[in-house]
Amino acid sequence: MKNKIISYLLIIFTLVINPHSVLLSEPLNNIDYKIIPKEIADNAIQLRNRTINNDLSIEIVESLTTEVGPRRMGTEGDKRAISWAMQKFEHLGFDRYWTEPVSLDRGWIRGDASAEIISPYPHKIVISALGYSVGTNGDLVGEIVEFKNMAELEAIPVGDSLKGKIAFISYSMSDSNPSNSRMNRYREGTKARGRGHVTAAQRGAEAIIIRSVGTDNNRYSHTGSGYGYKDDIKKIPAAAISPPDAILIQNMLTRKVPVLMKINLTSEIVGPKESANIIGEITGREHPDEYLVLGAHIDSWDEGTGALDDGAGVGSMMAAAAFIGQMKDRPRRSIRVLLFSGEEIGFYGVNAYLERHQHEMNKHILGAEVDSGGGRVHTLVPGVGPDSLHIIKEMYKLIAPLGVGLSDKNDAKGASDMSVLGKAGMPALNFTQNSNDYFKYHHTPNDTFDKIIPADMRYLTSAYATMFYLASEIPINYRK
Amino acid sequence: MKNKIISYLLIIFTLVINPHSVLLSEPLNNIDYKIIPKEIADNAIQLRNRTINNDLSIEIVESLTTEVGPRRMGTEGDKRAISWAMQKFEHLGFDRYWTEPVSLDRGWIRGDASAEIISPYPHKIVISALGYSVGTNGDLVGEIVEFKNMAELEAIPVGDSLKGKIAFISYSMSDSNPSNSRMNRYREGTKARGRGHVTAAQRGAEAIIIRSVGTDNNRYSHTGSGYGYKDDIKKIPAAAISPPDAILIQNMLTRKVPVLMKINLTSEIVGPKESANIIGEITGREHPDEYLVLGAHIDSWDEGTGALDDGAGVGSMMAAAAFIGQMKDRPRRSIRVLLFSGEEIGFYGVNAYLERHQHEMNKHILGAEVDSGGGRVHTLVPGVGPDSLHIIKEMYKLIAPLGVGLSDKNDAKGASDMSVLGKAGMPALNFTQNSNDYFKYHHTPNDTFDKIIPADMRYLTSAYATMFYLASEIPINYRK
Repeated sequence: MKNKIISYLLIIFTLVINPHSVLLSEPLNNIDYKIIPKEIADNAIQLRNRTINNDLSIEIVESLTTEVGPRRMGTEGDKRAISWAMQKFEHLGFDRYWTEPVSLDRGWIRGDASAEIISPYPHKIVISALGYSVGTNGDLVGEIVEFKNMAELEAIPVGDSLKGKIAFISYSMSDSNPSNSRMNRYREGTKARGRGHVTAAQRGAEAIIIRSVGTDNNRYSHTGSGYGYKDDIKKIPAAAISPPDAILIQNMLTRKVPVLMKINLTSEIVGPKESANIIGEITGREHPDEYLVLGAHIDSWDEGTGALDDGAGVGSMMAAAAFIGQMKDRPRRSIRVLLFSGEEIGFYGVNAYLERHQHEMNKHILGAEVDSGGGRVHTLVPGVGPDSLHIIKEMYKLIAPLGVGLSDKNDAKGASDMSVLGKAGMPALNFTQNSNDYFKYHHTPNDTFDKIIPADMRYLTSAYATMFYLASEIPINYRK
Repeated sequence: MKNKIISYLLIIFTLVINPHSVLLSEPLNNIDYKIIPKEIADNAIQLRNRTINNDLSIEIVESLTTEVGPRRMGTEGDKRAISWAMQKFEHLGFDRYWTEPVSLDRGWIRGDASAEIISPYPHKIVISALGYSVGTNGDLVGEIVEFKNMAELEAIPVGDSLKGKIAFISYSMSDSNPSNSRMNRYREGTKARGRGHVTAAQRGAEAIIIRSVGTDNNRYSHTGSGYGYKDDIKKIPAAAISPPDAILIQNMLTRKVPVLMKINLTSEIVGPKESANIIGEITGREHPDEYLVLGAHIDSWDEGTGALDDGAGVGSMMAAAAFIGQMKDRPRRSIRVLLFSGEEIGFYGVNAYLERHQHEMNKHILGAEVDSGGGRVHTLVPGVGPDSLHIIKEMYKLIAPLGVGLSDKNDAKGASDMSVLGKAGMPALNFTQNSNDYFKYHHTPNDTFDKIIPADMRYLTSAYATMFYLASEIPINYRK
């Protein structure tokens, strides 16, 4: 009764100080207190309701994108990001925080990129070098030859039939068969992004351009990583052009006139670089050596400020752990935020992490990662042992008022970086998110702070904070 | 009865050749055949229904944006556009077409534009020179001083308090008071765009940057025209930065650290240029010297391909007239398409037109212009004499099935260029359009063909074709 009065007073107080506060009704009678003790359930509800009215995760993204900006692995921005993260962990009251070195075998300087149609008439084209492309060594001029997709390019025999030409893969992630899932269409697009430069070089091409892999029709290029060059195959420049420019070139080509393009990239592959994962810990009160790990990647592409990819992950995960750290007691087990280096260029950070922590993977009780932007959470997907599943379902009831559904699958491995640990045996939780905007902005200059939708970020953060608080307090083995 | 059978056969035929055809139900009994003779009404309905299933207007925009591209007045693109328009009038079966010279007192070379925050950390900023800005003569470096709007800048006393500084007007068309109309917010934004460079120079600033005047949060700059320099005031460079970059700089400034920026514009004001209006005519069978004029501007800004601004106008107006020209008989009066030069930089084309045709303005029976993109028409606004209004209302019934409303006002002057003729006494019709997207794209590199929504363009074209066919056939004086 006393608790109930305090709850009502808290509600009234909250509404007085912020009349826009969200207050969620509770299906409390549903909770099986034999599985989730009442005090823990009450704490979880308080945590959940506090966090959906708190802008901390958004403030962290604002801070990262304003004070650090772009932070591709191995750049000055990366160094700024490491200092920033250490200070932020300190400021947010984490008990411990440290870096763990990650080596990068080769660096890359983006340099400048420009392109221009020079015939049928001069017109600037929006272009970005793909990650780790070589430069053009001055102006490169060639006639454009279009291929609808990688298969069409591969169908040309190896040889020199594309000598003097620029191969152009016009595959559109947005226009292709919509019955194919978005992720499948993304993967089809990344074939050309990943290895088109090798395939085109084997056919004699001087360079390759691809239609950006994205769902928008904005005049930006989406950069991204290639899978590298092969020693015995000519290294040709690789770049993405914006969707409207791709459409323009396709429409020019239907006129049966040669379309000549000039490309100038000053990109350069350079020597090794050092970077680091940054780890912050809210130390567990009973089992400090058992870790619940919340992951995101600290690196970003370098033309925007990486707000959605993956500032949203950094903000939501740092804030979720910080909120748990603000509770009366430390959680039973440690909550660790893992900010991985070098996700964008090939999981450098998480691979180094796995190597270093392989011996204690069994201490990694449960993990999750946010790397799909800051959109509203819609479905909880567990990836735990069969015995644990009914406990996760009981926990789920406490976040259901956020408007979240529960998947009937139990196969989550942790998204992005965290999937590497998931595949190494770590149980995982994931929330699918509304990511309709994600492939419009990701890897473009347009991935900036204004794309964060505050209400969505609050719900995202709240969902992870609440579930991981509960997972820390219910002392089971989620592998079983 | 025979007509009815033919109508049904036509409907069946249309559906067989294109099962997606739109067929509109008719409130035919409503029409007062004493005002609109039945044959004319029937022709209008056929014209309307034919045009809503025809892509001609879209094909014209595709042709213009692909074959000509950007076409700022006085550039090579402008010359291409003039040739293109002449060929297009020929190809579309216009009876006559010709050019009328328009002189431009000074040309402008956009050159290249780049900008970078150099402190607190280096970061590229998306920037575009405003039309007719001078260049920076190499790198220009200064500390940014923010003003929320023009009034704040004007409040600084004339003098040299901004010496060494870059004035930054952060006014946001999208974030400001939404109870203010969009056009009013646009006009507020254009104060800084139009005369900020003079006001800032009078206070000692080295350059002025403004947040782009637009409603989007994309990382593009919206260019636009300034009102020119004053001879006795220092000519400083003027440029627009993208909304996300404006937000970033504002967020940096809240940290109370100096924000230093480097700007490099190679823009240049040059000598006079020659251009032309292009006019195409479907010559009237009874009153060839009475003109119904459909206007659009042929010039565009130069970073996109001017699809919405004003390719959509060119496409819809050329197609509307061409459709009338495809009818069994020539219209009673002449239909003229006026493609004006130099709208973007100050109504050069229409002013020259008015000067040349002043003596026959009374022959200009009725006019209209499309210069708000290709969006769906929603309301017909007449601007005719009091006696004509009930006839226009009767005509309106024939286009009501397009989903168009009728304004209770009678004050249309013709949009954009055409308003100059409207103010000179010409009666006008206008359709308001859905232009929600217009201020996202206009004057940016992102104004490209893919932004055209085909179904909307068809309805837009159909509405103008039908009304102007009717206006040609009903031989009244719309001034009365």
